[in-house]
Amino acid sequence: MTTHTPSPSAAAPLALVILAAGKGTRMKSDLHKVLHPVAGRPMLLHLMASAAHLAPQHQVVVAGHGRDQLEKALGGRATIAVQEPQLGTGHAVQQAQGALADFAGDVLILYGDVPFVRAQTMQAMLDRLHAPDAPAVVVLAFQPDDALQYGRVIAEGDRVVKMVEHKDATDAERACTLCNSGLMAVKGADLFALLAQVGNDNAQGEYYLTDIVNVANAQGKTCAVVVTDDPDEVAGINSRGELAQAEARWQHRRRQAAMADGATLVAPETVWFSHDTVLGRDVTVEQNVVFGPGVTVADNVVIHAFCHLEGCQVDSGVSVGPFARLRPGAQLEQGSRVGNFVEVKNARLGAGAKANHLTYLGDADVGAGANIGAGTITCNYDGYFKYRTVIGDRAFIGSNSALIAPVRIGADAIVAAGSAVSRDVSDGELRLVRAEQLVKPGWADRFHDAMKKKKAEGRK
Amino acid sequence: MTTHTPSPSAAAPLALVILAAGKGTRMKSDLHKVLHPVAGRPMLLHLMASAAHLAPQHQVVVAGHGRDQLEKALGGRATIAVQEPQLGTGHAVQQAQGALADFAGDVLILYGDVPFVRAQTMQAMLDRLHAPDAPAVVVLAFQPDDALQYGRVIAEGDRVVKMVEHKDATDAERACTLCNSGLMAVKGADLFALLAQVGNDNAQGEYYLTDIVNVANAQGKTCAVVVTDDPDEVAGINSRGELAQAEARWQHRRRQAAMADGATLVAPETVWFSHDTVLGRDVTVEQNVVFGPGVTVADNVVIHAFCHLEGCQVDSGVSVGPFARLRPGAQLEQGSRVGNFVEVKNARLGAGAKANHLTYLGDADVGAGANIGAGTITCNYDGYFKYRTVIGDRAFIGSNSALIAPVRIGADAIVAAGSAVSRDVSDGELRLVRAEQLVKPGWADRFHDAMKKKKAEGRK
Amino acid sequence: MTTHTPSPSAAAPLALVILAAGKGTRMKSDLHKVLHPVAGRPMLLHLMASAAHLAPQHQVVVAGHGRDQLEKALGGRATIAVQEPQLGTGHAVQQAQGALADFAGDVLILYGDVPFVRAQTMQAMLDRLHAPDAPAVVVLAFQPDDALQYGRVIAEGDRVVKMVEHKDATDAERACTLCNSGLMAVKGADLFALLAQVGNDNAQGEYYLTDIVNVANAQGKTCAVVVTDDPDEVAGINSRGELAQAEARWQHRRRQAAMADGATLVAPETVWFSHDTVLGRDVTVEQNVVFGPGVTVADNVVIHAFCHLEGCQVDSGVSVGPFARLRPGAQLEQGSRVGNFVEVKNARLGAGAKANHLTYLGDADVGAGANIGAGTITCNYDGYFKYRTVIGDRAFIGSNSALIAPVRIGADAIVAAGSAVSRDVSDGELRLVRAEQLVKPGWADRFHDAMKKKKAEGRK
Repeated sequence: MTTHTPSPSAAAPLALVILAAGKGTRMKSDLHKVLHPVAGRPMLLHLMASAAHLAPQHQVVVAGHGRDQLEKALGGRATIAVQEPQLGTGHAVQQAQGALADFAGDVLILYGDVPFVRAQTMQAMLDRLHAPDAPAVVVLAFQPDDALQYGRVIAEGDRVVKMVEHKDATDAERACTLCNSGLMAVKGADLFALLAQVGNDNAQGEYYLTDIVNVANAQGKTCAVVVTDDPDEVAGINSRGELAQAEARWQHRRRQAAMADGATLVAPETVWFSHDTVLGRDVTVEQNVVFGPGVTVADNVVIHAFCHLEGCQVDSGVSVGPFARLRPGAQLEQGSRVGNFVEVKNARLGAGAKANHLTYLGDADVGAGANIGAGTITCNYDGYFKYRTVIGDRAFIGSNSALIAPVRIGADAIVAAGSAVSRDVSDGELRLVRAEQLVKPGWADRFHDAMKKKKAEGRK
Repeated sequence: MTTHTPSPSAAAPLALVILAAGKGTRMKSDLHKVLHPVAGRPMLLHLMASAAHLAPQHQVVVAGHGRDQLEKALGGRATIAVQEPQLGTGHAVQQAQGALADFAGDVLILYGDVPFVRAQTMQAMLDRLHAPDAPAVVVLAFQPDDALQYGRVIAEGDRVVKMVEHKDATDAERACTLCNSGLMAVKGADLFALLAQVGNDNAQGEYYLTDIVNVANAQGKTCAVVVTDDPDEVAGINSRGELAQAEARWQHRRRQAAMADGATLVAPETVWFSHDTVLGRDVTVEQNVVFGPGVTVADNVVIHAFCHLEGCQVDSGVSVGPFARLRPGAQLEQGSRVGNFVEVKNARLGAGAKANHLTYLGDADVGAGANIGAGTITCNYDGYFKYRTVIGDRAFIGSNSALIAPVRIGADAIVAAGSAVSRDVSDGELRLVRAEQLVKPGWADRFHDAMKKKKAEGRK
Repeated sequence: MTTHTPSPSAAAPLALVILAAGKGTRMKSDLHKVLHPVAGRPMLLHLMASAAHLAPQHQVVVAGHGRDQLEKALGGRATIAVQEPQLGTGHAVQQAQGALADFAGDVLILYGDVPFVRAQTMQAMLDRLHAPDAPAVVVLAFQPDDALQYGRVIAEGDRVVKMVEHKDATDAERACTLCNSGLMAVKGADLFALLAQVGNDNAQGEYYLTDIVNVANAQGKTCAVVVTDDPDEVAGINSRGELAQAEARWQHRRRQAAMADGATLVAPETVWFSHDTVLGRDVTVEQNVVFGPGVTVADNVVIHAFCHLEGCQVDSGVSVGPFARLRPGAQLEQGSRVGNFVEVKNARLGAGAKANHLTYLGDADVGAGANIGAGTITCNYDGYFKYRTVIGDRAFIGSNSALIAPVRIGADAIVAAGSAVSRDVSDGELRLVRAEQLVKPGWADRFHDAMKKKKAEGRK
């Protein structure tokens, strides 16, 4: 028998069984419920990332409909067991039996739509499973503010006496506010034997996982309860409304953490992080900034209001926005600046380089200290292929220029405003692409007269 | 006598009297109070839209100042009766007598600044008016969290015994928390006779509508009360603060409904709908999206963060934004894409067409599969008239091009980057509008030297 | 002895001692804690602006680390006294003795990280100091919702009997919920004598300012308490989280005031003001608008959604945005319009002028009624110096034009779309800068064929 608080090395092997066969009808979506994202990551992957801290040997996802979507999202990271037809949670767990043949470790039963259970809570369940009294089943319970709708865990101390659905509960049982989260840790050696004893003699005609507790008790086995101190972590997501609430709770925690780590969020409730956002120290994030996945921001950076960042790296001392969009592959080196109505995609801005206004930099490499004038467009696409633009250090790209890739602008070179440059420019060279200025004195006055007359006629 | 719950066909004819003569001083506005918009529609029109479910035969708006504004907003949809001078709510209703001469149906008395009364509540008042005990007057009451400031409805069962202003109420009467909303349903045959008995012997020297209840009671007529279960619906809007609260309540309900219907709102509190927004299923709306009036969005659309839409149609599979603006007349067909810093006005994007960056499409027709390069501008205005740009299927408009309307670009045609095109381009043709590239080797280096010198001199 | 409620002229001279020597470790910032901004102004300057209503003769800021930052921010507006080493709040105040030698007026002791104390509260403390019972010390206390962590003010009536730290308090003392804000008003003649009696015989080995109350009491002097009715005003800012809370409280108050003064804020919680924002009447501010410092907005202006304004003047009847950025020096005259994805910097737009789409106006002067086409860029920078663009009244700048400054466009002149204009244009003249349109029939079709073939080969 392991000790009550095992070191990881002493822990028994672990298998996860993640139930994801529910129809998710209330989501009203063609996307599988457990693939709806929170903070830019499908909820199922949040759950698996949390459980990964426990280094499970097996991960079985029990799927019903939408199996193809799950397979694609999992990309081989878990075994998929199929539940068809769907005859209840107990039946669902039984479908994992094939994948767990001969597995004698611990089994943690999780739910794809209860994605924010903390690793420490899962660990506490496993620890309890290996406590000296050696329970067969550990149930995770919670104490909500309003217990009305939930099934109850009737316990004496931390021993579970009975599990009861709310609708079947006596008044005395309902007065107990310890509620069943549905999560369980079970000894692998017991799990399927217990499930085999579960019947479907109930109104729904379903096999309920919960019943293994009553079966185990009837066999004289011990069942224990672990109570989370944070009811939010066992909140299920069954509708878009609950999805939005989960997102809001996640964002709230992440914002508090960002501020505690030394970032100023001027209006924290208007900054949205992704699951993997990295922020440095003395970073200021102004109002209304969206961090998509894959963003790393170094120290002393200012992200001004109304910015959207995704898949990009922002080095120290950089200023971004307002109204800037950094797309995947954007790399802003030290002290560079990206200003308003500027889009950067798959492009490097060298140290101190500036692109301050109304610019599209795509598939480009901009040298240190270069100045990209307002309205500059890198023409990186011909409808079939993408091409690169390379701009040398300290080059000056005049406003409203089009750089027709593939093209190379030399160091210290100047492109005159309004130029469409399709051939390379050498270091220190001026490239001027401009037609003659045709002057038509009095033409505008005559045009105004004619148009005013036409407009007046149109009104008659 | 009609039955207690009449079918619509059995209902008596209905007239609305909507009071809108208040000065609205606390709004501090030159715009008439009842014309301040919520969810993009003046509050008076919200009220009339709600009452329209009851198919009223007459609609009388009682106006004081700002009559011209009301007439313009109503556009003939209601009769305007003028109250001048303004001698109280009873006096205001009396001004509708001319418009309702010989009308013997039901009269519903509403308030332009209490715009969110539900049709079902109005119907409940009318139903009560036609209950077997045949009351002359039905008062709508509510039970607020804090009743302090409101007039009280003193009732026995649902019979009104007395109406009393808060300041005139005894302690016992104040202990009653049933409050007067001001809304009433009155038999048309009784209304003006009752009003004629109302005096103005009070501190303000005004004729109070409320007093018809006491007059009716004195005459031995029955007065009944209907109590709303939602105090918010009778909230008056008297200040910009209350206007903002009404907007927030409206938006909250609309967001919840959108999610229940199968839209993902990543941050619901940052999405603003209009009164007539239509969203399909599996629509994702990211953070900070404003829907102005007249927007219809089909299934499987993604509206990315920071978008502003108004008067437009977005077909299935379309992606919009981030940072996109769709203005009236924008029509995005199936699978088309509008990206960042792009404005579309009175323009169609054919199926699969793309305008991804820094573009203005105005008065344009873009064919299916066309690619509009970054920085493309349709020059649709000459200062006097607007002209159309027509772009063929699969055409490729190179970046930073100006299309000078009226102009037609053929199917599969290519406009080279940086071109200003003022003449039609045929199908499959390349149009290249570009001047010679003038090369001045070493010029930039000499310029840098000269400028650095000048700058250094400036500092001396 | 002055009266209880002195007129300003009768008031004693006043000195402020502002403590700002704390390390601010929890901010995790290289910026001095008291220089972190709220509403665009460092918190220390908020406090000094509030105290300025009392016209202090002396202002002493006691600094520890980060003295250079403080000096720079204060710009000579206060004397800086250095506390080195830092031996407690009493020791900190002692460092002001040199700056206040021979000063016999009142001393108000404030905290740089408690920036939102109202002038009226400070005045109440001074008034109490000059009440007939002539206390030596006046302590400012507050009654928080949760008093647990704070030091207690043990008072009989408004006489302070004892000051006690929470950890040293008896149960009876803890039951008292009158908490010490730390702020004090002290007679200058008493202050340093009292401080000299304070010892450091405590766990921290520090000299506590609070102890002067106990010293004064021991000497038979009177100490009095003033209790604020708004606990928020004495909230200290010690972390980025508390900074965000202070910002949120400030913004909430400012938004309510703006609405009370006659502005419509469609979604008040998404409008951010600066400390000095000025708004006219019947101004509408839509969702998500950021006012940086220095903005003045006249009557009947509409700021549409997603705008960022700073250092600019917006005259009556102007329409801004959505998605517009006004930078310092922008001046929009009556009835002018700035539309989406437009940036205006150091530029005037004359009455009725329009710049509606994708434009950069920098260092420019635009005449009344001028029309700036979509995609217009003023090329105001050559990498070394900035130059001005002057555009005449009613001029028409065609779309996608580059105006290469210094340049002057005459009144009623027209610049054709797609032009790069580097030489002045006279009044009523047409300037057309455009190359020949090269036509290559069939080229595009051949290109498409070749590219499709290449793409197909790439897939093999």
